[in-house]
Amino acid sequence: MNQELFTINNLWMMVATILVFIMHLGFAALEAGLTRAKNTVNILFKNTIIPALGILSYGFIGFSLMYPGEAFEGGFFGFSGFGLSLMDGWDTSAYNEGYTFYTDFIFQAMFAATAATIVSGAVAERIKLGPFIFFSLLYVGICYPIVGMWKWGGGFLQTLSTPFYDFAGSTIVHSVGGWGAIIGAYLLGPRLGKYKDNKINAIPGHNLPLATFGVFLLWFGWFGFNGGSVLSAAPGAVSLVFVTTAVAASAGAFGALFASYAKFKAYDITMVLNGILAGLVSITAGADMMAPWEAAVIGFIGGILVVFGVIFFDKVKIDDPVGAISVHLVCGIWGTLAVGIFGDLAGGAQILSQVIGIVAIGAFCVIFSFIIFYALKKTIGIRVDEQEEVEGLDINEHGMHAYPDFATKE
Amino acid sequence: MNQELFTINNLWMMVATILVFIMHLGFAALEAGLTRAKNTVNILFKNTIIPALGILSYGFIGFSLMYPGEAFEGGFFGFSGFGLSLMDGWDTSAYNEGYTFYTDFIFQAMFAATAATIVSGAVAERIKLGPFIFFSLLYVGICYPIVGMWKWGGGFLQTLSTPFYDFAGSTIVHSVGGWGAIIGAYLLGPRLGKYKDNKINAIPGHNLPLATFGVFLLWFGWFGFNGGSVLSAAPGAVSLVFVTTAVAASAGAFGALFASYAKFKAYDITMVLNGILAGLVSITAGADMMAPWEAAVIGFIGGILVVFGVIFFDKVKIDDPVGAISVHLVCGIWGTLAVGIFGDLAGGAQILSQVIGIVAIGAFCVIFSFIIFYALKKTIGIRVDEQEEVEGLDINEHGMHAYPDFATKE
Amino acid sequence: MNQELFTINNLWMMVATILVFIMHLGFAALEAGLTRAKNTVNILFKNTIIPALGILSYGFIGFSLMYPGEAFEGGFFGFSGFGLSLMDGWDTSAYNEGYTFYTDFIFQAMFAATAATIVSGAVAERIKLGPFIFFSLLYVGICYPIVGMWKWGGGFLQTLSTPFYDFAGSTIVHSVGGWGAIIGAYLLGPRLGKYKDNKINAIPGHNLPLATFGVFLLWFGWFGFNGGSVLSAAPGAVSLVFVTTAVAASAGAFGALFASYAKFKAYDITMVLNGILAGLVSITAGADMMAPWEAAVIGFIGGILVVFGVIFFDKVKIDDPVGAISVHLVCGIWGTLAVGIFGDLAGGAQILSQVIGIVAIGAFCVIFSFIIFYALKKTIGIRVDEQEEVEGLDINEHGMHAYPDFATKE
Repeated sequence: MNQELFTINNLWMMVATILVFIMHLGFAALEAGLTRAKNTVNILFKNTIIPALGILSYGFIGFSLMYPGEAFEGGFFGFSGFGLSLMDGWDTSAYNEGYTFYTDFIFQAMFAATAATIVSGAVAERIKLGPFIFFSLLYVGICYPIVGMWKWGGGFLQTLSTPFYDFAGSTIVHSVGGWGAIIGAYLLGPRLGKYKDNKINAIPGHNLPLATFGVFLLWFGWFGFNGGSVLSAAPGAVSLVFVTTAVAASAGAFGALFASYAKFKAYDITMVLNGILAGLVSITAGADMMAPWEAAVIGFIGGILVVFGVIFFDKVKIDDPVGAISVHLVCGIWGTLAVGIFGDLAGGAQILSQVIGIVAIGAFCVIFSFIIFYALKKTIGIRVDEQEEVEGLDINEHGMHAYPDFATKE
Repeated sequence: MNQELFTINNLWMMVATILVFIMHLGFAALEAGLTRAKNTVNILFKNTIIPALGILSYGFIGFSLMYPGEAFEGGFFGFSGFGLSLMDGWDTSAYNEGYTFYTDFIFQAMFAATAATIVSGAVAERIKLGPFIFFSLLYVGICYPIVGMWKWGGGFLQTLSTPFYDFAGSTIVHSVGGWGAIIGAYLLGPRLGKYKDNKINAIPGHNLPLATFGVFLLWFGWFGFNGGSVLSAAPGAVSLVFVTTAVAASAGAFGALFASYAKFKAYDITMVLNGILAGLVSITAGADMMAPWEAAVIGFIGGILVVFGVIFFDKVKIDDPVGAISVHLVCGIWGTLAVGIFGDLAGGAQILSQVIGIVAIGAFCVIFSFIIFYALKKTIGIRVDEQEEVEGLDINEHGMHAYPDFATKE
Repeated sequence: MNQELFTINNLWMMVATILVFIMHLGFAALEAGLTRAKNTVNILFKNTIIPALGILSYGFIGFSLMYPGEAFEGGFFGFSGFGLSLMDGWDTSAYNEGYTFYTDFIFQAMFAATAATIVSGAVAERIKLGPFIFFSLLYVGICYPIVGMWKWGGGFLQTLSTPFYDFAGSTIVHSVGGWGAIIGAYLLGPRLGKYKDNKINAIPGHNLPLATFGVFLLWFGWFGFNGGSVLSAAPGAVSLVFVTTAVAASAGAFGALFASYAKFKAYDITMVLNGILAGLVSITAGADMMAPWEAAVIGFIGGILVVFGVIFFDKVKIDDPVGAISVHLVCGIWGTLAVGIFGDLAGGAQILSQVIGIVAIGAFCVIFSFIIFYALKKTIGIRVDEQEEVEGLDINEHGMHAYPDFATKE
């Protein structure tokens, strides 16, 4: 490849890196906005420390687990050594046709922390900080890169006769986060009062402008998440991805709007916001191969699914304060299946491969999450005590309030 | 054009697309911040659903109305068929020298929703949700692309002997929004209490950090709005546009600061914020042809105009909670005229053409908006009832509060 | 250089410009979030007007002081004339191999306002608006470009036998701001009640989500601040800078987390946020030459330093509401020294040159700031009166509240 195209491709990958980075602010804002003011510092703390943890741990170990090169055997596991700084070749095009080694690393590192961030929302308002950070470290540093390698690192899902397909990570990123979220929320149990007296008691988010900010920033960043996953600035491919991403998000908003209005007879902003995310997660697996109308259908169905997901998980008393399981797990699965239903790869063999990928990655993540969370639960404990939960995690874990100048209700 | 430059140009257009996208968050934040807490969910809801609606309706019909190709007659109207997915040629440079079809569509789609968003601010705190969404659909899907075609689609304003000039849309985007805003605000009437006892009673915005966020994000996005309107990454042209855009915004801040201090003897942050927007709207029509000092003059005058605009519309009792009419309509007109006064095109013939464009587009938008809003008013009604307005739209239309954990005044 | 690479380089510099621009929103949010609700409008006002002032004054005089071309003598001072519009050559590659004249100007202009913004945080909640704006004008328009010229404009620090090295401005931008901050905070004295009864009374920030937003936006923008300082899109160099920047920020978070937990036994979000900024400031001087592990060490130490800096300045009763002096001055010095300790330039001669640069620039800024602030203090005064400070600057200087709908405590 010539120097000009190499420079352009690398530039787009770097811009995409920044866009994925800002998604972490999007998650922070969304999760803080959809929970109570008394737990806001705690959520901000988690969502600030996770990207920092993710970048460092991915550099130290994750990248080498996810892209082990020729080193792995059997396609299930590989490792090319500790520490980013051991590597070189960053300053030439020798590493890769499209971008430098350092671009590759930093783009991938921004993705990595996402898995733990998704978990963060589902376990919010009751998990202990220390155990959550510990879980995040292992989930980002070990679990995510191992299952990521199965496909993106050339592992067994890539070498199936009909390879599993997941363009930008409906399964590899979003449902990985979603599986951790469901296991965490299940083992923690619901927040106090959520399912009291056999009723589902809504616990409204304390700051809806903040939640809206979060969703717009996530959408904004998703142009880099999906667009950067083209791994070059190829005009046709990236611009198609932009259109499918935007159309699916828009259709997801309407899917959730219609479903929630039909169900609740109100214009529920939180459902529309989650509908946008549902559309985005749903298109992620096939954003590079759908016609715009297919993206609209996939996103619209995602938007409907997220509403019924939220209702369903409340029915089975898995308390997910921000709807993360419905958005990332349910729609992650849906989007991955949609690759086999729509687009260039539609067909039975592909659907089968998609199911194999979903199940294999799901099983690994469930077992991994369960072992870690269960071990933590049985030892140091994962849930704050009742008084702390009632008073709020902010004052108890952090010794501060998020909004000390304002009077609160009660 | 060679593949390298095609890829670079396309990349810049895609980055500009993302920047214009985030302006929708800017509008959401600005409008929410400058209105009352009891109507915040309603504003967030509108500003979230509008971009989704805009992208879908522009794909279904708007793009084909605005860029009908050879199909139109007389230069007033054209249409090339329903549905984006009918089109192809996206993956080559055959469509266009500068960028792919999909890039063209998605960049333009991000612009389209802006018109309705501008209206949203002026009619805030009292319009019914359903009628507003319906109006937005028609305004974005039909009105905006028709008048846009007159110039950008090669219509009659483009084929005048001295063509009307509007680089990035002072008239085509901003005053289109502004005309809808003034008609809507007029037909709705002022908010309860705004002009009670023959006084102008200020109704302060509830969250000025949010409003400030909005303006900075709009400025940020405007580098894509104006910079992307070069339709290539041409270094000289885009960098000049960056300078004129930044300088006009800065001068607008000072124009509004001086005018508002002279008038009110206070440092009014909301005036400075609107002054920045005034500067941006004012430079938009000629951002590609002004020297930096001309941009400073144009922006500074825009900043002064916005202050007197706000005072004027209050005097005639057109209640515009966020100052949208002054920013987008008054400065949109001013910026369009400035093309004939300053820069490469200065001269009487150009001023005449600018006036023709302003009047033609204004007339169409006024008639279009009036018909829709008036028909809605006489049938299902456009204004919420008095009790709902007093209690707030959030609890009545959406069944939720934006900040449920905080105690409010009163 | 060929047209393709010129266009790519210029595009990256323009994108970097936008990223540095949005840092001003980051500063606004951070400073508003870490101070009290009654002074929020004042902070927003200052941080909105400063970039506008910076762009205009840098265009009128600053750019010509900082990059005087061949005109200066002795390496201490130079000036190439008033007014940006006098210049031309913007539309070709004749100006520069990497980017156009206008790109150069606007990228540099976005940097310029940063110096005053840093000061703004340290003097918050008690400085009079008028004198602060006047100081900012002189600091941005004269002080910053003069010391900037010493290195970046080819002045005496550049022509030392071992040239002073400051890649993106740990000293030239951040410590320049930091020196102004410490002089301003010292001459103003502490906020009422901060050191009452010989105790340090914490005055908590009123909106921690806002502060978190600020830090994420600053980190986001820093990819442009450091990445753009490569002055081209060179893939190897820019991608290395991205990695060192991200790694240093992450390590800074952990440095501050460990230090603050050791000291206070609480997970202090404000320390983690300042730790991220500390890491960013620390890596800025050498971001282009450190291995990732060196960036981690430099950032981690920066994170520790910021915690002890905050403790130290409280001990000596220099009241810095947001920790700006610790972040920008202490870590600016540390990062500049680190260039001589780590990386390609490690060695005694380099350390000496770094010290010369730190001292020379520090001395000039201290004297400049002291003269301006002291003259203002002795004439029109720089501190609001006691009643105004107690009631808040918002209602007294601006006649408005930032959050009028909410009930406040007390």
